[in-house]
Amino acid sequence: MLTVYHLGLSQSERIVWLCEELDIPYRLEVYQRDPQTRMAPPEYKALHPMQISPVIADGDLVLAESGAIIEYILAKYGHGRLKVAPDDPAFADYLFWFHFANGTLMPSESIEMLGAGISGADQLRVGIGSDHPFVAVYTARTDRGFAMIEQRLGKVPYLAGADFSAADIIMLFALTTMRAFTGRRLDDYPNIRGYLARIGGRPAYQRAMTKGDPELSPMLS
Amino acid sequence: MLTVYHLGLSQSERIVWLCEELDIPYRLEVYQRDPQTRMAPPEYKALHPMQISPVIADGDLVLAESGAIIEYILAKYGHGRLKVAPDDPAFADYLFWFHFANGTLMPSESIEMLGAGISGADQLRVGIGSDHPFVAVYTARTDRGFAMIEQRLGKVPYLAGADFSAADIIMLFALTTMRAFTGRRLDDYPNIRGYLARIGGRPAYQRAMTKGDPELSPMLS
Repeated sequence: MLTVYHLGLSQSERIVWLCEELDIPYRLEVYQRDPQTRMAPPEYKALHPMQISPVIADGDLVLAESGAIIEYILAKYGHGRLKVAPDDPAFADYLFWFHFANGTLMPSESIEMLGAGISGADQLRVGIGSDHPFVAVYTARTDRGFAMIEQRLGKVPYLAGADFSAADIIMLFALTTMRAFTGRRLDDYPNIRGYLARIGGRPAYQRAMTKGDPELSPMLS
Repeated sequence: MLTVYHLGLSQSERIVWLCEELDIPYRLEVYQRDPQTRMAPPEYKALHPMQISPVIADGDLVLAESGAIIEYILAKYGHGRLKVAPDDPAFADYLFWFHFANGTLMPSESIEMLGAGISGADQLRVGIGSDHPFVAVYTARTDRGFAMIEQRLGKVPYLAGADFSAADIIMLFALTTMRAFTGRRLDDYPNIRGYLARIGGRPAYQRAMTKGDPELSPMLS
């Protein structure tokens, strides 16, 4: 059986959510961040040489990296659901948003986060200050990303187009929980807020957040 | 026909290389970085709202993001080549390395790069110094990545396993040209050096580098 190792307040919420959307059997193991440093505990870091989240196991296979895990689960257990096929007009859009999440948007937000100087001793130690020009460069890049998402969601209900897909599952963390780290607000993004309300109404998303991060109120507004 | 917009010394070298490996017809447009700032020229930034490289066009479609472009070209023009199928034992390895490249390794190297304070006025302006603890955190993460790649290439000739694949195409930039920006050396990585020598012997790689970055000596050692 599939085991999902979920680190609280992390990208692995995507994997819990994916399993709930697909309604497949899985075993969930939840790990909490150190309350002082906000870092993953040693037991979580020991799961994979890169010490990153998410991580899954499936038999002898241990697999990390959001994009890889989502594609693996879709291929093995998805039966074609939540993907867009190459002959569908939405195929290129699906690919773009799927890869944009961790290839461009998340790295920009990570630097914005470190400039934001959120609470937590270790983060503050490495924080570079919100007034640093380096942070400004990446905050501007995140701004471009949010503007593009806002524009897209003014035209279509989901990122790949008419239908909810795994592109929404990988992108959502960058629009919700990641904001707990960056402090970014959505006042000027009505289309994104409407999208988040639609996602928040999904029973599978609600189940995933209740199981994975029961103490967190999902950042849907 | 496919148009590949290649920004010199950038991730778009992957797309030129992919087209050469697949031996498909494409039109190549090469743009050079500003010699002072090392930034992309305004004409390149205008190609896509995110102002990122690579970008391709295919009819009316304009598509950015390395992972998305590679998957798009493989699906439309690859006829199954350079991919690993879900029923192949190497499938999960293929997915991991494919997504690891831009999801984890490149973001770490980007911060290492900004700490390295390479030449170029704009980079220096935003540079955060190699002695900053923030840079140290990400340099250690890149170290873990290189150690993992070194170990992998001690067991198999290519990242997905026995066969050369698109996982190698997306990963290679992080091991070669990216080092022009970070200053990282490969003295302690004999398996990676052997791998780079194998890649350097591929006629398609040689053609791609000659066409896309004729003034660059490929960083294969």
